[in-house]
Amino acid sequence: MSGGLDSATALALAGEAGFLPYALSFRYGQRHAVEAEAARRIARAQGAREHRVLDIAVGALGGSTLTGEGCVPKGRAFEAIGREIPSTYVPARNTIFLAYALGWAEVLGAFDIFFGANALDYSGYPDCRPEYIAAFERLANLATKAAVEGQGRYRIHAPLIGLTKAEIIAEGLRLGIDYGATVSCYDADDEGRACGECDSCRLRLKGFAELGVSDPAPYRSVASP
Amino acid sequence: MSGGLDSATALALAGEAGFLPYALSFRYGQRHAVEAEAARRIARAQGAREHRVLDIAVGALGGSTLTGEGCVPKGRAFEAIGREIPSTYVPARNTIFLAYALGWAEVLGAFDIFFGANALDYSGYPDCRPEYIAAFERLANLATKAAVEGQGRYRIHAPLIGLTKAEIIAEGLRLGIDYGATVSCYDADDEGRACGECDSCRLRLKGFAELGVSDPAPYRSVASP
Repeated sequence: MSGGLDSATALALAGEAGFLPYALSFRYGQRHAVEAEAARRIARAQGAREHRVLDIAVGALGGSTLTGEGCVPKGRAFEAIGREIPSTYVPARNTIFLAYALGWAEVLGAFDIFFGANALDYSGYPDCRPEYIAAFERLANLATKAAVEGQGRYRIHAPLIGLTKAEIIAEGLRLGIDYGATVSCYDADDEGRACGECDSCRLRLKGFAELGVSDPAPYRSVASP
Repeated sequence: MSGGLDSATALALAGEAGFLPYALSFRYGQRHAVEAEAARRIARAQGAREHRVLDIAVGALGGSTLTGEGCVPKGRAFEAIGREIPSTYVPARNTIFLAYALGWAEVLGAFDIFFGANALDYSGYPDCRPEYIAAFERLANLATKAAVEGQGRYRIHAPLIGLTKAEIIAEGLRLGIDYGATVSCYDADDEGRACGECDSCRLRLKGFAELGVSDPAPYRSVASP
């Protein structure tokens, strides 16, 4: 759970589906720690049984603007977003995240892992595509003692996978999520105020605009979507 | 690369096959840090271009005697070793390790990942089996920008996968590995001296005995294999 809009909605959908959620977040050398604080608030608000934050070393591998190399792109055309793999791509990030989630699930005796990848992500990030998620699920059922001993079958749930940003927001509003507590921006300031111009902000603002709802999150400048 | 016998041999085999190796080790809450020191020595001796040690949070998830819960089993019958999944199994460990290796490979522009799993491991640990390794290779080629953009195809090499411990040691001796610098023990002391009684020590001592060679590593007590 990143503290952004998508993972907050995925968590709420897991609860609605009857699961008792355990929330997992990662500190991995992002530019801002405000996301972790947002994740903590959301986990509590959504009734997570536990929220664990792991310090992991993805940033130490380099290769992404999201973990400190170069600049986060701003003001890109919507046509470009999703057509090419952005520089914010972090090598093997979701594979590392899902591997930790699998390890914790096995310790907990849980077999259902919720993952907030969505249709906009998967056109841009290879490790958000449905075929990737299916391959990870297959791996999980070969990788673990619990699966091999027949205690259960792992499922990777991606409830947002077919949804646009507007549809995700509509689901979340239906479930009462306070999106003002979420931070989606790739370049938020120390108070958690979003830039309004990176891909993540622009897609989010566009989603709210399509619903005719204003985004309750704080922005230091608001671009028109 | 753990600093043990298997990963040292896998590294030497990668070099023999003509690769320029980059060695990756993990600190993950093991009982002893002497392994990391052994890994550093081996990487240097085998001419690794770089040796990176990542601090990762596997131990924080719990669920294994290898990361601090309960006692490492000692003096188990050889028939039991490999027939059941031992308590030293760390949930999803190799999936986490391989995910980091994949991320670093992508940053380096490398497509070949060497993994020291062997035949003895894969009867005991689900995430050392050939079908697991094949599933990870498939995942890697769906997960990454480099693969999706056609820059190359990831291969997970497991050169020890069909070998017994004695065969692995024979390969390593042929390649001039100093096995006195390796630490295989699950319960080594602060000077890196092995216990001689855990599964890892017993399998190693049995391998050397089968070759009629004495193990050059230091032991605080030497059990007959």
